[in-house]
Amino acid sequence: MRKPPSPHRPRALAPIERIPGVDYGVLDELLGYSLRRAQVAMFLSFHRATRGLEITPPRFSALVIIGANPGLSQSTLGAVLGIARSGAMLLADWMVERRLVERRRRPDDARAWGLHLTRRGAELVDKMKRAVAAEERRQAARLTAPERRTLLRLLEKLAG
Amino acid sequence: MRKPPSPHRPRALAPIERIPGVDYGVLDELLGYSLRRAQVAMFLSFHRATRGLEITPPRFSALVIIGANPGLSQSTLGAVLGIARSGAMLLADWMVERRLVERRRRPDDARAWGLHLTRRGAELVDKMKRAVAAEERRQAARLTAPERRTLLRLLEKLAG
Repeated sequence: MRKPPSPHRPRALAPIERIPGVDYGVLDELLGYSLRRAQVAMFLSFHRATRGLEITPPRFSALVIIGANPGLSQSTLGAVLGIARSGAMLLADWMVERRLVERRRRPDDARAWGLHLTRRGAELVDKMKRAVAAEERRQAARLTAPERRTLLRLLEKLAG
Repeated sequence: MRKPPSPHRPRALAPIERIPGVDYGVLDELLGYSLRRAQVAMFLSFHRATRGLEITPPRFSALVIIGANPGLSQSTLGAVLGIARSGAMLLADWMVERRLVERRRRPDDARAWGLHLTRRGAELVDKMKRAVAAEERRQAARLTAPERRTLLRLLEKLAG
């Protein structure tokens, strides 16, 4: 019997491998297709690193950002992740329910709330950071260190 | 009144912009995060290029690949796109229903079917190729030509 698929990995997602003998036509020239292939490869590596942790890339990014910016507002969190206000609220609710994050009044504005990692959240972030970075190093071992730095720089430049 | 969101653009997807004053912590060091930012930017550019065409990136890739490999089997198409057999069938059904693609018996195996673009499919592919390539050039104008080639090469190397 096969295990049911994890709810945190899109069911049909598999590495997008180059199939010998197939002509890729214009796809070979398009950044969009290569980006998608690379992103799927890195997503699967992220998935291996966070197996069993109920963590998705946006949840991971949110926890890292809150850890690095204690008291961050929910709307800034949404802007950082490129998600709508309603999505940022759902995400914050999820982190609060899991006792990874708590909402505290902001000292500069009593009507506003800031997000803070709990001790439990901080421990999870530390554990995940190490696991995600280690899996990334494995996947990115195909690149030399200067190539990896160049790739990061060009991706940032492209995204703007 | 706002228009309802297009079904072909994930509702909450927006550019993942760098917010001044926010510390990105370890995300700055991770390829996964930069890849996601760049991929969202290119996806939004793809979306602008194919507005009104009911086309998603996998549908575009499928049509390009079938055009470049007439008679391709459905299972090879699934492998090329990194999707499961059931997903490849749904995709092929969609293209056949829209009269973009037709299934023909393969000359080498009478029990197997090959996928071929119809004239209508070939015309749509030509139109989309031009539009997608033009939007990509606009987005990728942030890079010099050698940078763009380097980025393509490093992404291919990373994805393996």
